[in-house]
Amino acid sequence: MSLHGLSLLAGAHGATGGKTFHAINPATSERLAPDFHEASAAEVSAALDASAAAFAIYRTLSGADRAKFLETIATEIEALGDTLLQRAHAETGLPLPRLTGERARTCGQLRLFASVAREGSWVDARIDPALPDRQPLPRPDLRRMLIPLGPVVVFGSSNFPLAFSVAGGDTASAFAAGCTVVVKAHRAHAGTAELVGGAITRAVAACGLPGGVFSMIHGGGATVGIAMVKHPATTAVGFTGSHAAGRALFDAAASRPHPIPVFAEMSSLNPVFLMPAAMSTRGAAIAQGLLTSFTLGVGQFCTKPGLIFTLRGPDTDAFLAKLSELVRTAPSATMLTGSICDAFSERREKITSVPGVTLLAAGAHAANPAKTEGQPSVAITSVKHFLAHPVLATEAFGPFTLVIMADTLAEFAACAAALEGQLTATVQADPADHADARPLLAALEQRAGRVLLNGFPTGVEVCHAMNHGGPYPATTDVRYTSVGTAAMLRFARPVCYQSIPDALLPDAVKNANPLGLVRLVEGKPSRDSA
Amino acid sequence: MSLHGLSLLAGAHGATGGKTFHAINPATSERLAPDFHEASAAEVSAALDASAAAFAIYRTLSGADRAKFLETIATEIEALGDTLLQRAHAETGLPLPRLTGERARTCGQLRLFASVAREGSWVDARIDPALPDRQPLPRPDLRRMLIPLGPVVVFGSSNFPLAFSVAGGDTASAFAAGCTVVVKAHRAHAGTAELVGGAITRAVAACGLPGGVFSMIHGGGATVGIAMVKHPATTAVGFTGSHAAGRALFDAAASRPHPIPVFAEMSSLNPVFLMPAAMSTRGAAIAQGLLTSFTLGVGQFCTKPGLIFTLRGPDTDAFLAKLSELVRTAPSATMLTGSICDAFSERREKITSVPGVTLLAAGAHAANPAKTEGQPSVAITSVKHFLAHPVLATEAFGPFTLVIMADTLAEFAACAAALEGQLTATVQADPADHADARPLLAALEQRAGRVLLNGFPTGVEVCHAMNHGGPYPATTDVRYTSVGTAAMLRFARPVCYQSIPDALLPDAVKNANPLGLVRLVEGKPSRDSA
Repeated sequence: MSLHGLSLLAGAHGATGGKTFHAINPATSERLAPDFHEASAAEVSAALDASAAAFAIYRTLSGADRAKFLETIATEIEALGDTLLQRAHAETGLPLPRLTGERARTCGQLRLFASVAREGSWVDARIDPALPDRQPLPRPDLRRMLIPLGPVVVFGSSNFPLAFSVAGGDTASAFAAGCTVVVKAHRAHAGTAELVGGAITRAVAACGLPGGVFSMIHGGGATVGIAMVKHPATTAVGFTGSHAAGRALFDAAASRPHPIPVFAEMSSLNPVFLMPAAMSTRGAAIAQGLLTSFTLGVGQFCTKPGLIFTLRGPDTDAFLAKLSELVRTAPSATMLTGSICDAFSERREKITSVPGVTLLAAGAHAANPAKTEGQPSVAITSVKHFLAHPVLATEAFGPFTLVIMADTLAEFAACAAALEGQLTATVQADPADHADARPLLAALEQRAGRVLLNGFPTGVEVCHAMNHGGPYPATTDVRYTSVGTAAMLRFARPVCYQSIPDALLPDAVKNANPLGLVRLVEGKPSRDSA
Repeated sequence: MSLHGLSLLAGAHGATGGKTFHAINPATSERLAPDFHEASAAEVSAALDASAAAFAIYRTLSGADRAKFLETIATEIEALGDTLLQRAHAETGLPLPRLTGERARTCGQLRLFASVAREGSWVDARIDPALPDRQPLPRPDLRRMLIPLGPVVVFGSSNFPLAFSVAGGDTASAFAAGCTVVVKAHRAHAGTAELVGGAITRAVAACGLPGGVFSMIHGGGATVGIAMVKHPATTAVGFTGSHAAGRALFDAAASRPHPIPVFAEMSSLNPVFLMPAAMSTRGAAIAQGLLTSFTLGVGQFCTKPGLIFTLRGPDTDAFLAKLSELVRTAPSATMLTGSICDAFSERREKITSVPGVTLLAAGAHAANPAKTEGQPSVAITSVKHFLAHPVLATEAFGPFTLVIMADTLAEFAACAAALEGQLTATVQADPADHADARPLLAALEQRAGRVLLNGFPTGVEVCHAMNHGGPYPATTDVRYTSVGTAAMLRFARPVCYQSIPDALLPDAVKNANPLGLVRLVEGKPSRDSA
C-alpha cells in the first residue's frame, strides 16, 4: 500500500504545493518515504466548513447508526492488517507486540463507544411533565437531554499512534456523541495517520455519510493547529501532549470571540507514596513493579510514576538497593522521536543537576543516539530539596524517576499538599498502613484524577468507571475524562424542550420511551413511559 | 433590625476604614442607610483562605448533612420575615408580591438542592469490579464518582436580589455539591445581601460548620471581583450579569496560571418566531402573551423576548395593531438601578436610530426619571435591516422588544442561522404549522439552551429537566445550566478509585451501596450491591 502524503479533506485529497515534511524511523534515524504536504490555510478552513455542514446531518443520526459507523471504522482499521503495524513500528520505534495490543485497544474502544451510543442512556434524559393545575403557577412540560456540540478538532498524540491519534479515544468519543471530527495528524507518524484516516474515510463512505464527517490535516505546528482552534465552526478541541502546546491551544480557544472548551491532557508526575508496612513485607516486589511501570513504553506514558516518596530506614535501604540493581539491568530503548529523546535528556540533566539530587542508578548500557535511545535511570533526593526546587516536580517524559526520602509521614502530607494537579496518585499500603493511608488518600484525591491503592499507575483501563483527567496542569478541564465512556460527555451539551408536542421531540425524550432509555422522570430514574 | 454595612468573613465582620458606598431607592432616588464598607485586598484573600480551609472539612459531610445545612439556610431566610422583603423592595424597586414569590423560589430552590444532595445519586457513581482472570491482562477494581471542586466564588446578580444573589441558585448548588462559597455582594442591594448573608452565617453556626464555609464581600467592581477570581484557592466562579462583566471574569480566570471554569450567564435576546397558522387562530392572544412577557419585571429578565419574527400579511397587521394598543396602555415602572435605566435608554435609542427601524408603539405615560422608570416600547424592522445591522441583535435590558418582518419562512431560517447563542428560542405554532416548525426548531436548538413551542420564555422553572444556559454569549459554558438540579454538576469533578479496599472508599462507591444510590455497575444502572 503506497502512501500519498496528502491531507484528507471531506473524502478528497488535499493539494500538493506547500511545505513538505517526512517521518523518520527513530530506531535507524532513516528518512521514511513519502513526503507529506502541509495543508494551506484555505484547506484548513474548507475542512471545518465541511465539518459544520456535515454536522447538520450527522447529529441527527440515531445512536444505532452512529454505532454502526464506529464499528465500521474498527473493521476498516483491522483490514489494514500488518501494513498498519509495520508503518507504525517504523515511525515510532514501538515494538510490534505493543502496537498489536494498541490496535486491539483502539478497536475495542471504538466498539465500546458504539455500545454506549447504541444503548443511548448516556444522554441523561430528564422529564418533568406539565402540572397544569399547580398553584400559584402551572408548570410547563420540560424535557432535557444531551445533544452533540458540533465539529471537534482532535490533535493526534505522539505516544499512542493508534489509541490516542487519528481514530483514538478523542475521535471515537466525539463521533459517538454525534460530533464531526477534523484531526490534526501528528507529524511523527504521518503515514500511520494516513492509513487510519483512510480507514475512517472508507467507513464514512460505506455508511453513506457526508464526507465532511471526517477530515485529517497535515501541517506545521502552531499555524495550522491554532487556525483549527480559532476557526468559527470549531466547538471543542481534544489534545494530548506537552504542557506548552496544550496551554497554547487553551489560550487560543479562550481568547476567541466565542470561547470553546479545550480538553488538553498535558503533564503529570504520578506520585507514588510507599507506606512502611508495605515496604517491610514487599519492598522488593514494589521495586520490581516500579521499574516495570516507569520504563514501560520507554517511560513515554502520561501515567509514568515520576516521583516516589519513601521513609528513611532499613526497608527503604533494601528497596533502593533492589531498585538500583534492577535499573542497572534495564536496557536502553528507542524513544518515539529525536526531539522527545533530546527533551528527555535535557530535563533529566536539569533535575539531576539540582543541588541535593544524586543519580542513584542508570542502565548499564548507554543510549545509542543513532537509535534514538533513552537510558533508564533513577535519582534520589530529600523532601527538603524537593520542596525547595519546583523543577524537581516537572515531568521528564521518558524512563526516569525520582525517589524522595522523607523522615516522617508528616513530610508525606507536606509533599502531597505541595503537588500540582496529577492524572494519578498511588499509595502502596498494607492493611497495617491503612490508618495512616486514609488521610493521605484524602489529600491525594484533591490533587489527582485517579487514586490507586497498590498497583501502578500505567495501564489505563477503557471502561465506564475510568477517569483519566485531573486538576491543572494534568489537564485543562478537571471536570472531564479523556479515557473511558464518560469521555463522550466532553462533546455534548444539554438542551431543554418546553411544551414541545411528542411528535416533534427526539426519540430520547418521547413519552413512550421508544429507545428504552433510563431517564430521570420527576427526578426518579426509570425506564417507564413518561 | 439595623444593618452594619460590613463584609462577612468566615463568621466575623469585616473592618471599616476603606471606601464606602450606599444603596439607593430607585423608586424615590433617595439614599438608603447605612454606608457599606468595601473589603480590603487582605480581607478578600483571608476569606478565600478560610474557604479553602473549611472546604477540607465541609467536603467530607454526608449528603444528609449538606441537606440539613441548606434547609437551615431556608428557615433562617424565612425567619427574616418582612424585614428582608422591605429592604429588598427599597433597594430594587421590585414590588412586594414579586419579592414574596422570589423568596419562596429561593427557599424552594434551597430545599430542592437539599433533596438531591440527600438522595445522593447525582454523584454518578460507576463501578467496574476487578476481573483478575481476564486475558491478556487482568482488570483492576475501578470506581468513579463526582466530588466537589473546592471554594466557589459567586457574584450576586442585580435582577434577582434573592433567587440569584447571596443564597441564590449558584450558592445553593455549590453548597449542595459540597463546595464552600465566597459571595461578592451586589452593590445595588447590599442591605438585602447583608440580611441574607447573616441568615447563612447563622445556619453555618447552627450546623456546627467551620465559619469559612461562607463569606460575603462588599466591594468595588473589578478590583475586588477580579481578585476573588484570581485567588489561587478559587476553583470555580458563578456569575449572572452583563456580557462585558462576564467576559472580564472569564478572561481573568482563563489567564490564571491554573485556569478555572467561569459559569457566566450574560446576554440573550430570546427570539420568538410566529408561524402563520398560529397567527391566524390566536394572533391577539400571542400579542397579549408577548406584552406580558417582555414587560414582566420591567423587562429585566435574562429570558425577556427581545426579538419577534413574523411574516407579513393581514394576520400580522392585526397582531401589530393589537400589540401596539397593549403597549400604549402598559405603565412605565421603576427599574432596578439608575445605571440599568440609563443603559436601557441608551441601547433602545441606539437600536431605534438604525435606518429602517421604526418605533411602533410606546407606553402612553413617559418615564419619570426621579422614579428611575423604564417606558415599555416596541419597534419594527425588516429581515433585510436586521441581518445588515448586528446592533439590532444586542440586548436592551428593559421593557423593549423588536419585531422583524419577514416575507418567507426561508427568511426565518436565515435569521435563525444568523443568531448568536441564546438562553431560549420560542416558536409559536399550531398543528398546521408543525411541518414548517420542525426544521426551525432543529436550527434553533443549535443556537439556544431551551427551545419552546408556544408559551413564553420568561418564567424559568427550578426542576430536574430545566436547562438555563446556552451557547456563547448567552453563557461562557454551554455544557452547564445555572437553574435546576443539574446546576450542581458545575461544581463537581470525577475521581476514580483504583483497587481501594471497601473500608477506605466513600460510601457512595462501597460494595454494599449503603446510601442506596442508583449506580452504573459494569455499565448498567442498578441500586444493587456491587
